[in-house]
Amino acid sequence: MTPLWIDERITYDGRQLVSHFAYRRYGVMGDVIVGFRGPADVRISEMVDLEDVRQVAPISSDEMLHFLIEMFEVRLGQMVWVQRFFILILFEHLTRYISREKLSRDGDDIFYDGRKLSVSIATVSPLSGLVHTALNIKPTGAPIPISCLEEMGIDPTEFGRTVMEAFCVEVEGMDKARTKVRWVE
Amino acid sequence: MTPLWIDERITYDGRQLVSHFAYRRYGVMGDVIVGFRGPADVRISEMVDLEDVRQVAPISSDEMLHFLIEMFEVRLGQMVWVQRFFILILFEHLTRYISREKLSRDGDDIFYDGRKLSVSIATVSPLSGLVHTALNIKPTGAPIPISCLEEMGIDPTEFGRTVMEAFCVEVEGMDKARTKVRWVE
Amino acid sequence: MTPLWIDERITYDGRQLVSHFAYRRYGVMGDVIVGFRGPADVRISEMVDLEDVRQVAPISSDEMLHFLIEMFEVRLGQMVWVQRFFILILFEHLTRYISREKLSRDGDDIFYDGRKLSVSIATVSPLSGLVHTALNIKPTGAPIPISCLEEMGIDPTEFGRTVMEAFCVEVEGMDKARTKVRWVE
Amino acid sequence: MTPLWIDERITYDGRQLVSHFAYRRYGVMGDVIVGFRGPADVRISEMVDLEDVRQVAPISSDEMLHFLIEMFEVRLGQMVWVQRFFILILFEHLTRYISREKLSRDGDDIFYDGRKLSVSIATVSPLSGLVHTALNIKPTGAPIPISCLEEMGIDPTEFGRTVMEAFCVEVEGMDKARTKVRWVE
Amino acid sequence: MTPLWIDERITYDGRQLVSHFAYRRYGVMGDVIVGFRGPADVRISEMVDLEDVRQVAPISSDEMLHFLIEMFEVRLGQMVWVQRFFILILFEHLTRYISREKLSRDGDDIFYDGRKLSVSIATVSPLSGLVHTALNIKPTGAPIPISCLEEMGIDPTEFGRTVMEAFCVEVEGMDKARTKVRWVE
Amino acid sequence: MTPLWIDERITYDGRQLVSHFAYRRYGVMGDVIVGFRGPADVRISEMVDLEDVRQVAPISSDEMLHFLIEMFEVRLGQMVWVQRFFILILFEHLTRYISREKLSRDGDDIFYDGRKLSVSIATVSPLSGLVHTALNIKPTGAPIPISCLEEMGIDPTEFGRTVMEAFCVEVEGMDKARTKVRWVE
Repeated sequence: MTPLWIDERITYDGRQLVSHFAYRRYGVMGDVIVGFRGPADVRISEMVDLEDVRQVAPISSDEMLHFLIEMFEVRLGQMVWVQRFFILILFEHLTRYISREKLSRDGDDIFYDGRKLSVSIATVSPLSGLVHTALNIKPTGAPIPISCLEEMGIDPTEFGRTVMEAFCVEVEGMDKARTKVRWVE
Repeated sequence: MTPLWIDERITYDGRQLVSHFAYRRYGVMGDVIVGFRGPADVRISEMVDLEDVRQVAPISSDEMLHFLIEMFEVRLGQMVWVQRFFILILFEHLTRYISREKLSRDGDDIFYDGRKLSVSIATVSPLSGLVHTALNIKPTGAPIPISCLEEMGIDPTEFGRTVMEAFCVEVEGMDKARTKVRWVE
Repeated sequence: MTPLWIDERITYDGRQLVSHFAYRRYGVMGDVIVGFRGPADVRISEMVDLEDVRQVAPISSDEMLHFLIEMFEVRLGQMVWVQRFFILILFEHLTRYISREKLSRDGDDIFYDGRKLSVSIATVSPLSGLVHTALNIKPTGAPIPISCLEEMGIDPTEFGRTVMEAFCVEVEGMDKARTKVRWVE
Repeated sequence: MTPLWIDERITYDGRQLVSHFAYRRYGVMGDVIVGFRGPADVRISEMVDLEDVRQVAPISSDEMLHFLIEMFEVRLGQMVWVQRFFILILFEHLTRYISREKLSRDGDDIFYDGRKLSVSIATVSPLSGLVHTALNIKPTGAPIPISCLEEMGIDPTEFGRTVMEAFCVEVEGMDKARTKVRWVE
Repeated sequence: MTPLWIDERITYDGRQLVSHFAYRRYGVMGDVIVGFRGPADVRISEMVDLEDVRQVAPISSDEMLHFLIEMFEVRLGQMVWVQRFFILILFEHLTRYISREKLSRDGDDIFYDGRKLSVSIATVSPLSGLVHTALNIKPTGAPIPISCLEEMGIDPTEFGRTVMEAFCVEVEGMDKARTKVRWVE
Repeated sequence: MTPLWIDERITYDGRQLVSHFAYRRYGVMGDVIVGFRGPADVRISEMVDLEDVRQVAPISSDEMLHFLIEMFEVRLGQMVWVQRFFILILFEHLTRYISREKLSRDGDDIFYDGRKLSVSIATVSPLSGLVHTALNIKPTGAPIPISCLEEMGIDPTEFGRTVMEAFCVEVEGMDKARTKVRWVE
């Protein structure tokens, strides 16, 4: 798992959640977690979460901290664990800055002060498992009341880089764990 | 995923980390998380973590809160994600009781006040993925300095039941997430 | 596996054999067997069976009892067993109404009185395994001589609902069977 | 899938349900369905069905028609479909000889005249999926009231060979079906 | 694995690397290795190797010996082994005609006299694993200096047929090897 | 894939073909190819190839160059490709030292001057795929006429190290190839 922070701002419109995003645009091969900043503006036709499609609930926010994870030959059944785990890593890191009482979580959604901080989805291409997770940086542009990193006093870039590196360390640890246990009956 | 709390005390000696533990002894079928209290006393010959075997580091503690997870037809590559995720769920729950600064985590190990609180291992049988995780309840019986739920003022049974139920809710959520997203290119 | 009977008539033109048909249109999540009535009219460009494509053998029938099965993360190698098993369930149920001698089967095709009663195909999307099976209700609209439920005196809706529920009971039984056997050497 | 009829009588005591039974003893390689006649006498320690173990319900019958199926690199989740499918093939063949009203089925159990005719189990070795299914030939030797092929007037050897060959034809058909459909979205 | 030599000349433009190529056009079902002669002219939009896409390195050659391999339900992780193995089979066969010193190999690329002789790619469709490998027959039409079978004095058709048959024998041997070993601890 | 050359001589008696051999004895974690020198003396009870067991053909040789490959979570169906590929790598390297005409290969067996040079087997543990391949170093100790590296003038240790490193480079290349191709329809 390679962490890749992209300095240029990218508008996330859903088409970034696709196989080989990091390789095609930045030449980074293999399992990767990409981070960048930019608005989110996903039209219904690009939505991956069919629950949102059914409820005609497009995603938008004026400025977000985005993460894209790609893991090759990982199926959706495993990828939802990767996604949920990453949400918990984000949550764990947030508790370093923010009082635990003001944070809450419901599945893949993180809340600050009762307002939604995050969006997240996991899916697959025929070649890889994919996750998109994003945290609001600014309080504007969303169809519902949201919280954001700005009001929490958290620097998005520094936070993003830190979480990505921590995630890669976790993955490395799990890769090793796979190969040092005997099986049981 | 069914939560199964066992009231009888069981000495965990490693032989409980085996396929169908819940079904053979309690008639509970399918994916399950089992919780119980009791000492831990795992001899080298029963150790699953070969790193511990290499370092001749047997596991013992006078009283622990044990969790056993069994998931059928899940391979080790996914089971290490299940394990790490469960550790984060434990951690998240602990932060409800304990000041965040006194808690830390290094991979699958949770620390309180700098002393080790937990042990954990993931492995497979030819039929299922298996996790054992346990938290010290009392401060005695371990070969190294440990922390324990007692000094943290946490009731083991209540904590255990709460975490198990929360874990099952998470799994249910992930099972649903698997079936409501379209694939991407 | 959830049984979902749809009262509205739907023309099966092949585009229903797609991932998330039940969820997108009816909000039913997860593994599902859908039943409905309506004509079949599948153009060559929508055919899934390449043997039919090669022989330019489009599928049509004026009124059919349709079944769609979707099972998430099941590959084609297993899905052909699901399909064949479902055909046998249909056959078994037909023998409750119809003299055994008048019924025959050749792979996935059921015949009554020597005339074809059924069509069936199994395939996959990148997310799920899919089966379409349909029985003629009326004798008209097909390019070959066919038999139909009408001449057999079988009520399509009642028959459809009964078979779907029976199939779900079977699947539930197999799910349990998976978790109650020890492995062997 | 190769059909292998063994003329020698073999006592089925559970140890035949093991990988490479056909290859080790008869030199037949690969996916195979083996048929033979002989008593069944399975002690609790050899039982694969843990439900029977829990209920201390050993299996015995003085003379049975046995089938063993081995499929390499097939997991239990698929093997229970293979098992259930094979039961339906047996049932379908029985309806050629016996009035449909006198036959019934409950999951993997076939009944004649309300008495149990069959036993069946599916499991895995680390290398293959395995099924054992047997039909009583004689009415004696079982702990419960049973029916048998003798009273049904069915010749066990001829019936066994016929069913095995029919099963192999079905498997061949499914193998082909796997490779002649296009995928869908 | 069926060998299929096609006598008609086909221009390989990338669209042949698709599931069911052999079945759709020639009625050959199942795992297959197809061989034919013809030019190669793959535009960037049809390129499968994203490294070549990134470097804007289209593939062309006036006359090549083409091989297409399709294996159903084989994932990319295994298919890259199939590809590399096939390259080694080609190399081994070339050493029967050509002095070993004049041949070299770097991964999937074969060189004669220091000039590139081959192109090769492995990928997947949602149903199958796919490989395209081709050897230059003539020295013209490529954007880089190439070697070719003509200058090596090798008859393309005979060489192609021989290699395809040898490959099928290898695959048959591996299929058998899968079913005649016991597992170990 | 890590290459691990072991300087101490080890008698290969079959018990080395087991999961975690490199980790348990030498602390090397993960996918690994191990090389060492020593006699081979495998009793029938330790044989993995059931064909040899059936023919009561034990393996022995006074001095061999041994290779053990372990790849975690790789099944037998893929491992036989790994094995065959490694044989071809050995063969390719031998042709650098030895005239091509004196070398031949039949599946996994390499011959020099018509006499057998190698033994090889692939199998699995419940956690990993495993290969053992060995080349005779001396001409003595085998039940059949053999060839050996000594008469070929090849230094076993240097040859072993070179091949192991080349193999690791190949594996690295295939790992990358997995992540740089788009999928096709």
